[in-house]
Amino acid sequence: MFSPTTTRALRRAPSPNPKTYLCPVCRYSSSTKPNRIIFSGIQPTGVPHLGNYLGALRPWVKLQDGAAPDDQLLFSIVDLHAITIKQDSSLLRQWRKEMFASFLAVGLDPKKSILYAQSDVPAHAELMWILSCSASMGYLSRMTQWKSKMSLPSNANPFDTSTSKKKDAPALKLGLFSYPVLQAADILLYKTTHVPVGEDQAQHLEFARELAITFNHSFGAELLVPPQTIISPAKRVMSLAEPTKKMSKSDPDVKSRILITDTKEKIHKKIRVALTDSIQGVSYNRETRPGVSNLIDIMYHFQEEQFTSPEQLAQDLFGPETSLKALKEKVADTVDEHLREVREAFNNAMSMGDAEMSGVARESANTANQLASSNLKTIKAQMGLGWD
Amino acid sequence: MFSPTTTRALRRAPSPNPKTYLCPVCRYSSSTKPNRIIFSGIQPTGVPHLGNYLGALRPWVKLQDGAAPDDQLLFSIVDLHAITIKQDSSLLRQWRKEMFASFLAVGLDPKKSILYAQSDVPAHAELMWILSCSASMGYLSRMTQWKSKMSLPSNANPFDTSTSKKKDAPALKLGLFSYPVLQAADILLYKTTHVPVGEDQAQHLEFARELAITFNHSFGAELLVPPQTIISPAKRVMSLAEPTKKMSKSDPDVKSRILITDTKEKIHKKIRVALTDSIQGVSYNRETRPGVSNLIDIMYHFQEEQFTSPEQLAQDLFGPETSLKALKEKVADTVDEHLREVREAFNNAMSMGDAEMSGVARESANTANQLASSNLKTIKAQMGLGWD
Repeated sequence: MFSPTTTRALRRAPSPNPKTYLCPVCRYSSSTKPNRIIFSGIQPTGVPHLGNYLGALRPWVKLQDGAAPDDQLLFSIVDLHAITIKQDSSLLRQWRKEMFASFLAVGLDPKKSILYAQSDVPAHAELMWILSCSASMGYLSRMTQWKSKMSLPSNANPFDTSTSKKKDAPALKLGLFSYPVLQAADILLYKTTHVPVGEDQAQHLEFARELAITFNHSFGAELLVPPQTIISPAKRVMSLAEPTKKMSKSDPDVKSRILITDTKEKIHKKIRVALTDSIQGVSYNRETRPGVSNLIDIMYHFQEEQFTSPEQLAQDLFGPETSLKALKEKVADTVDEHLREVREAFNNAMSMGDAEMSGVARESANTANQLASSNLKTIKAQMGLGWD
Repeated sequence: MFSPTTTRALRRAPSPNPKTYLCPVCRYSSSTKPNRIIFSGIQPTGVPHLGNYLGALRPWVKLQDGAAPDDQLLFSIVDLHAITIKQDSSLLRQWRKEMFASFLAVGLDPKKSILYAQSDVPAHAELMWILSCSASMGYLSRMTQWKSKMSLPSNANPFDTSTSKKKDAPALKLGLFSYPVLQAADILLYKTTHVPVGEDQAQHLEFARELAITFNHSFGAELLVPPQTIISPAKRVMSLAEPTKKMSKSDPDVKSRILITDTKEKIHKKIRVALTDSIQGVSYNRETRPGVSNLIDIMYHFQEEQFTSPEQLAQDLFGPETSLKALKEKVADTVDEHLREVREAFNNAMSMGDAEMSGVARESANTANQLASSNLKTIKAQMGLGWD
């Protein structure tokens, strides 16, 4: 991340120090003019919860707002990934819209970032096929995602469903198995240099890097750019109902998560009934007090500039005398205060007509299509898939 | 196949007989106005040999020339399939051109049929991804094609390469494994009703049919059309060098095949050295005289209207007194005579500038793109992958 002022200054008078460009978010340093291509994606799961917001959307906004003028940012609603598991069509359509409205609500700006739905850009699937001709079945079978989505042990073989925990488990579909190749295509399609992701995606990013290197080697040209990973500083937001599990959209208990559109009343109600413990006072310890620590973490994520750590926040604001009721009240107030603007912006975005929203989405998709088509054309030409 | 005259007559005065429409090629019968969508594809292997010509290209031309005005025909150079095995980029580019020139040379007409390269229509890969989310890994692992291309036994498991015949065999790539899903997408993309293929493709067509049925069931709509297969009457053309094997582009011995562009001299030379046997005279028996019978078959394929079978041709034209030299001479003359026009047309097509050829190919691809995009849009909308 480059503050625009610094960058402009540097461009006028290049610094002799090769380490001058150092992004405080991704630690990217360069002695040349910064020109990053940043890509990330999120599944259309409807209105994001706090975990999505703090772990993905907010960092994206920070990257966007601190980007150098030559940086290019793409954020995609990866609906082609969503269909690797069974989806209700009407819900999926609604969730795409809600996610797009959330993009706008949190401050992603179509004038600064390319915000689009993956299925609106055919080149994702095209490059996926091309890369699948270089991707080894053995490597893919060792990936963990399809196993976890099928609730299979980590040593499961794609054809041995007898180890499935569930009886009558559905058969493994090719799409779920080959998911990492589509993810690699998403990234490599734009010559992405930097991918902000959570730690759980590190394995997939490594796969994309290796695939890019293999591919370049096969075709004797630097057609694909092995991307750098920007692992976001851990922003694990845990379930309010079961604080040893990540906050998740798929949890049937809606009180387990706070959505970025929850009203003040809802936020307070959900935090009031959040699972904590019966220890007196407020203290921070993820191991022994997961529920209380999760609430402190949530509060800290909104006040990182004022405190050096959640521990310090707990010490400074609370103590052995503080009741858990008071802690919860304070956490709920903080969350509400910080989400108020997002909530209002979301409602405004959703009140756009379908035509207006799809107009914005399609305009961005056109830009993505132009970039993607141009890169793909070069790749195809080098492979012999062209007329010229 | 419908003769235009008959069809026009029928349209003016619909016949009360529901069996009136009966295609002599595909046996398709209907009591309503014929409106077939016929799709087939061929890999870009350069100039076709006699097997390609007699088994695929010539039947396509017959389908085209006998099609009803409402029938729609698409013939594709399936270059995305070609890359499932390693290709030399320059050769692939050349082979695409040569195959396209061959399309034109044999009489496929861009005014009557849509003639295009698969990689020029992104929707093939898009639908492939969509279908891959319905295709079961188990079913795919039982398909035989990837096993035969990897020289693996028919019971091989995709992850067990220890059964590979070759040491240092390359790892199985996802693209080769998932090939049948792309093939299903090729066909289903256009709501194809009829697919002319060789018998070796029957398994893949059945896979496409089942995938269409499963998909329609999942999305509660008749989005995909399970196609009918038109199995071409067997036109197995065997290698001239080893007449128990099919004539093939991958045979290192160029004398094992006749290309549709071979000169009179080349045709004579290749047939003169074709492997036969030391039995006296000419007689037809595929088991005991494979080489001689192959030559008789080749001759028969060019004269099917004059003889009821290769046996009859052999009886009528040759006999126990005919020398093999005389047989070969006669076969070579027949082949040369029938290929002369194709050969000249091929040379004309290849002498088009690159721009002219790609212009023709791209115009056809645009038409294919319009059909494909429209169908794909309906499919995506029904799945929830749309803004409206």
